[in-house]
Amino acid sequence: MSDNDNGYWDALSHPTITVNDLQFLEPVPLTDVSIDDDFWSPRIETVRETTVEFVYDRLVESGRIENFRVAAGETDGEFQGRFYNDSDVYKWLEGACYFLATHADPELRDRVDDVVDLIAAAQESDGYLNTYFQLVEPKKKWTNLHAMHELYCAGHLVEAALAHRAATDDDTLFDVAVAFADHIDRRFGPDGEDGVPGHQEVELALVKLYRATDEDRYLDLARYFVDRRGAPDSRLKHEVFNPGEIAGEAYDRVITEDGEYDGTYYQDHAPLREQTTVEGHAVRAMYYYTGAADVALETGDEELVAVLDRLWENMTTKRLYVTGGIGSSHVGERFTEDYDLPTDTSYAETCAALGSVLWNQRMLRLTGEARFADLQSRTLYNALLAGLSLDGTRFFYANPHEMGADGHPLHDEDPNRLAAERQGWFQTACCPTNVPRLIGSLGTHVYATGESAVYVNHHIGSEATVDVAGTRVTLDQDTAFPWEAETTVTVTPADPATFELALRVPEWCDDVTVTVAGDPVEATSCEFLRVEREWTAGDEVVFEAAFPVRFLRGHPKVRSASGAVAVQRGPLVYCLEGTDSPRPLHQVRLRPDGDVGVEHDPALLDGVTVLDLAATVPDLSTWSDEDLYLPDAAVSTERTTVRAIPYYGWANRGPDEMRVWVDAESPSG
Amino acid sequence: MSDNDNGYWDALSHPTITVNDLQFLEPVPLTDVSIDDDFWSPRIETVRETTVEFVYDRLVESGRIENFRVAAGETDGEFQGRFYNDSDVYKWLEGACYFLATHADPELRDRVDDVVDLIAAAQESDGYLNTYFQLVEPKKKWTNLHAMHELYCAGHLVEAALAHRAATDDDTLFDVAVAFADHIDRRFGPDGEDGVPGHQEVELALVKLYRATDEDRYLDLARYFVDRRGAPDSRLKHEVFNPGEIAGEAYDRVITEDGEYDGTYYQDHAPLREQTTVEGHAVRAMYYYTGAADVALETGDEELVAVLDRLWENMTTKRLYVTGGIGSSHVGERFTEDYDLPTDTSYAETCAALGSVLWNQRMLRLTGEARFADLQSRTLYNALLAGLSLDGTRFFYANPHEMGADGHPLHDEDPNRLAAERQGWFQTACCPTNVPRLIGSLGTHVYATGESAVYVNHHIGSEATVDVAGTRVTLDQDTAFPWEAETTVTVTPADPATFELALRVPEWCDDVTVTVAGDPVEATSCEFLRVEREWTAGDEVVFEAAFPVRFLRGHPKVRSASGAVAVQRGPLVYCLEGTDSPRPLHQVRLRPDGDVGVEHDPALLDGVTVLDLAATVPDLSTWSDEDLYLPDAAVSTERTTVRAIPYYGWANRGPDEMRVWVDAESPSG
Repeated sequence: MSDNDNGYWDALSHPTITVNDLQFLEPVPLTDVSIDDDFWSPRIETVRETTVEFVYDRLVESGRIENFRVAAGETDGEFQGRFYNDSDVYKWLEGACYFLATHADPELRDRVDDVVDLIAAAQESDGYLNTYFQLVEPKKKWTNLHAMHELYCAGHLVEAALAHRAATDDDTLFDVAVAFADHIDRRFGPDGEDGVPGHQEVELALVKLYRATDEDRYLDLARYFVDRRGAPDSRLKHEVFNPGEIAGEAYDRVITEDGEYDGTYYQDHAPLREQTTVEGHAVRAMYYYTGAADVALETGDEELVAVLDRLWENMTTKRLYVTGGIGSSHVGERFTEDYDLPTDTSYAETCAALGSVLWNQRMLRLTGEARFADLQSRTLYNALLAGLSLDGTRFFYANPHEMGADGHPLHDEDPNRLAAERQGWFQTACCPTNVPRLIGSLGTHVYATGESAVYVNHHIGSEATVDVAGTRVTLDQDTAFPWEAETTVTVTPADPATFELALRVPEWCDDVTVTVAGDPVEATSCEFLRVEREWTAGDEVVFEAAFPVRFLRGHPKVRSASGAVAVQRGPLVYCLEGTDSPRPLHQVRLRPDGDVGVEHDPALLDGVTVLDLAATVPDLSTWSDEDLYLPDAAVSTERTTVRAIPYYGWANRGPDEMRVWVDAESPSG
Repeated sequence: MSDNDNGYWDALSHPTITVNDLQFLEPVPLTDVSIDDDFWSPRIETVRETTVEFVYDRLVESGRIENFRVAAGETDGEFQGRFYNDSDVYKWLEGACYFLATHADPELRDRVDDVVDLIAAAQESDGYLNTYFQLVEPKKKWTNLHAMHELYCAGHLVEAALAHRAATDDDTLFDVAVAFADHIDRRFGPDGEDGVPGHQEVELALVKLYRATDEDRYLDLARYFVDRRGAPDSRLKHEVFNPGEIAGEAYDRVITEDGEYDGTYYQDHAPLREQTTVEGHAVRAMYYYTGAADVALETGDEELVAVLDRLWENMTTKRLYVTGGIGSSHVGERFTEDYDLPTDTSYAETCAALGSVLWNQRMLRLTGEARFADLQSRTLYNALLAGLSLDGTRFFYANPHEMGADGHPLHDEDPNRLAAERQGWFQTACCPTNVPRLIGSLGTHVYATGESAVYVNHHIGSEATVDVAGTRVTLDQDTAFPWEAETTVTVTPADPATFELALRVPEWCDDVTVTVAGDPVEATSCEFLRVEREWTAGDEVVFEAAFPVRFLRGHPKVRSASGAVAVQRGPLVYCLEGTDSPRPLHQVRLRPDGDVGVEHDPALLDGVTVLDLAATVPDLSTWSDEDLYLPDAAVSTERTTVRAIPYYGWANRGPDEMRVWVDAESPSG
């Protein structure tokens, strides 16, 4: 494709789903995929070797694990921290178990099992499990669904338990999760007490549990939570207006200035099937849509898929940072309105990016459409990866897209809102416990299988074994992504077999050439290249393309992008960081029509391809220290180059100025 | 001069003062100048007819006048409002008296005299007068100079008293002021108690009182306050660290995080003669430098003039908004650092602009240099005039240089910090009471006299009578300023006389032609054109020039000006307001090399010359509602024009988007 094509964003805006085309792809289990990738393997190792232990130490220090010990009666003490802190322990467990599943580690296994034993010991005889309520408000369980996160924590328990069982073949935590899920199922639902979670998560966990157990009641309860939300007679609303009866405190953020209920914050403003825009707290929204898509994957609910696709279209065409980040405002960590994508106060929470990766995985499974994998990729390489320091011990909760000189936020007196550097821990530690969950399970995202088809969703070096067309097939992927568009997939069926191999050609490729067993195949970007043939052992699919440097413009309604460009090459969005620039970044005006130098620097930021971009800057010789304002005709500019680095790598060299959107000369078109 | 000249800002940066050249110009008394000007006369009338009464009503409503009645024992009650509220009454009186001096108004005279009588009745027998201390903390007078404003209020009392006596020939308030000044003089000074005011103002007032009385002790005390400030053994510092002994509370804003004293906020960080940068609270700084310049005017202290000139150079080359506004941060209403001139959070307090006009008047008197009058003019027509609504009843305290869509501040959750609309009153009402003081005394700024010379400082239509070279001379000025550069000054000496007439040629003129009695005279901009000759009745000085539209660039270190231009024509800085633009202002990129339409619209904003500026905007046809990001090569721009209005007139048509600095195409030079 040429630069003049609309490309990815065009594809975004014209979704091709028709509900009759639902595909129901199956992910490939983590244990059937082995990642061996120049880009990802070192990152996975860092998280496995460093982050998992680092986070565990923080869980211990902050009392999050001790809470279970106290609840189990094994020691005296008081509940420490916030009421949702159990979830961090579950999320750490889940992530740790993904690593255990693919890498024997007796020490970690012992640590995991100790925590599992503590959790099991803390569970009450009726299956209930939440250390905050058990220790602080035992009489007020299930009285405050809208703010107190019992169901949210339960969801993470279920996910952790399934990961633990898969990694260890031990049923201890699984049994705990089932008992708690059954407790919840007995209490809530069409035949029980009304209610939906204030923070979604349990929906997708219940579908997972349904898949693991084949017990319909879990799917039914998930569907109930998905569909009951937003009802006019909302249970959450009732709690908010009757706070005397509830645990903790009621949210004031869901009451308008006029005293009316507005549940938009947690997507309780309308039934999901009536929603047309992504609204409210971005993490809640992502987990909600993920859970709903999971329900659709199991039920074939075509209406639900159409609803989710409409929401996806709103998000991707109106409310998405170019990095894949979502949720632009720190007030409520939420979506705001169409085209409101400020760069210097961007929230773009790391966990919201993770949620988007999960939702897109489900949409990809539902549809087999490459656009969802493209957005997964955009989010993974940029919005999400930026959340973790290269050394694996520091985290961004919020991800700015612009930072002031010396790392001072440009417009904020509270430096915690937009930190210039990643931090080691947070009172609300959702992001540090989420990153290992995703990095540890990355393998499940790389491939998928359909009916007589195998999908290569992502260009990530790996070996996978899948069953397709009645045959065991090994896929051996070797790739230069994300630095260069060169991938070879070697297909080795146990016996020659006819099936379709669907290789994703990302939007950001040009000049795509593909050969299959030496024969050229037609291919265009932003689609799955589908090759149906009889495959024999050692058949190679060789993919080659160019990664042109793209200068992207934002819609004219996006104020922060006005007059500026963002730079992308391959899946990577780039940024300028002050230390790489000959001038303060506000003086730099990029020339999209200029030459670009592309160079891989193995010594920089653990190895990155840098871009040397053509720019104009003020000619300082026309200014003296004593001039403050000069006529336009008295000043001039000069040409220079500035170095751009991948956005994910910023803020690893100390606090500094940074810009994703850089002023640019007007388009020549 | 051509656009390529450095012009005004060049002149700013190369001051020509040598201390041997001090001029000691004398202002022309208010009663000897009668303004008759198409631009100013309607504004003066509005303030006289509307603002003076409007402010008086607020003084009554807020208890500011009642405080004097209570202190006088004429009624029971408690002190109302803030401890510095007496100053607002004095400032209103001063302004009202300037109008009384030039316009008989029996009703206003009665009101003024009633207030004067109340003030006199409230004064204590020893001369002390401050209703807050008398009513609230009578035992703690003079214990908290750094924060409690007794000396500040005293200064405004003196200024009001001198204005009252000049307007009415009544000594009532003058006697009150003298008694209080003597009280202060007995208490403070080299032979009395150590101390300087926490908010400067009394210094300039004492010099005024010295001029009115010829009593050296007032000048000596003013000089003491000017020079004692910033001493290492600061009294203010002592108070801050010994708050148990003082009235009210101590400032924490003058204590660093390390617990050290930092008096920069009120210019107590170093002796004035050691200061090289304008620092701290901008109003305090301006009043301080004004008072110091007043001392120099009386003492010929050449060192002091050099110090002030150095500060002026720092302000004008590093810390001055293009509108003349100063003090960029709402935190401390203060100067921050060189080149820190944000537009969307600009404070640029109206009172600081007034203070700058006063300081520049003194610098002009000291030096006879046009650059000070140029800055007076820039400040008056822009930063200061913007503070008042066209109808005279609304005021900006802080003056943004950029406002978001629908008048929402771009980066501020506290709407009071950067109001999108002028307000009727403030708890701290310094600005509403300051504006009438300046507008009412505008006449004194238009002319000045030197030894055998008369200065026409400002192009404001007026008739003045001055004594020069032993002759009574009438100057009749007719002008088209600020819309066109056409001025005729008719000189009518009582008898033919030889003297110099110095007519200011502002920096923002091009193609200047001047004739004197029909004969052409050489003239360049940014200077006083000095014509020495024998003048006879009816000699005309005819000044004509062009007001080219200037597109100004900010120094590359000024972040907010990067890639943008400000537009100036004549003394007026222009801005874009949303309602006049075909596009949201962030989409507009001006083309400084394009044609400019100049049109006077008598129906708009009480009559303004508008500018139609060439601009490029995104070609919306290249964007659909479903595109969020597109490759640079896929989009284009189109040309349009956008209308600019004078900055002073913004926010008179409802809340709206506004920009002074507008994105611009790169300089072609």
